[in-house]
Amino acid sequence: MIEKKLRLSTLYDFYGNLLTDKQKEIMEQYCDFDLSLGEIAENLDISRQAVYDTVKRAEKILEDYEGKLGLIEKFDNKVKKASIAIQGLESISEGADSSNLIQLEKVKKLIKEIIE
Amino acid sequence: MIEKKLRLSTLYDFYGNLLTDKQKEIMEQYCDFDLSLGEIAENLDISRQAVYDTVKRAEKILEDYEGKLGLIEKFDNKVKKASIAIQGLESISEGADSSNLIQLEKVKKLIKEIIE
Repeated sequence: MIEKKLRLSTLYDFYGNLLTDKQKEIMEQYCDFDLSLGEIAENLDISRQAVYDTVKRAEKILEDYEGKLGLIEKFDNKVKKASIAIQGLESISEGADSSNLIQLEKVKKLIKEIIE
Repeated sequence: MIEKKLRLSTLYDFYGNLLTDKQKEIMEQYCDFDLSLGEIAENLDISRQAVYDTVKRAEKILEDYEGKLGLIEKFDNKVKKASIAIQGLESISEGADSSNLIQLEKVKKLIKEIIE
C-alpha cells in the first residue's frame, strides 16, 4: 500500500502538471499532503467516491504518460550513474591537494544539481 | 526558418511519443527525415494542406507539453552544468597520476551519459 502511494506520488511529481486543475487539486491533497480520501472529500465538499474515482483516473493518466515518456525510469538510471560518479570523485579526493579538492567538490555539487 | 525547424525537431524528440500515430508519421518525415511538406503529401497520398495542418497542430501540442513540463529548458540547463563539470575534471586531469586519470575519465563518461 505504501509502495503504491509512493509510486503515485512520484508519478504526480513528474507529470502532475499535465492533469486538469480539478485533478491536481485532489492529487495534491492526496500525494503532497497525504490526506485520506475521506478528508479530501470533506475539504472539497464532494463524495468520497468522487475523490476515489479522480485518484484512480489520474493514476491511469499518469502511468500512461510514464509509459510514453519514461521519465521516471530514465531518472532512476541517472541517479545510479550520478552515485557511481560521485563515489569515483570521492576516491580521487582522498589523495588530492587543496585546489583539486575544491574543484572536486564543485563537480560533485554540479552532478547533484544535474539530476535534481 | 532553420531555427524554427530545429525547435520543432527538439520538441518532437522530447514529446513525440505523446502524439497520435498519424501525427507521428508526418512529424517523423518532416523532422527526422527533413522532407518537404510536398514530399510528405506525395508519400502519404494526402494534400499538402493536410500535412501543413498536422505539422502546425502537432507544433502547438508539443509546445503545450513543453510549457507544462519544461523538459527542454531543464535539459539545456543540465547540459551547461555538465559542461562546467567536465571542464573542472579536465583541469584536475592535467596533474593527475594514471589511476586517477582513469577514474576521472570514467566520471566524465558517466556525466555525459547522465545528460543523454
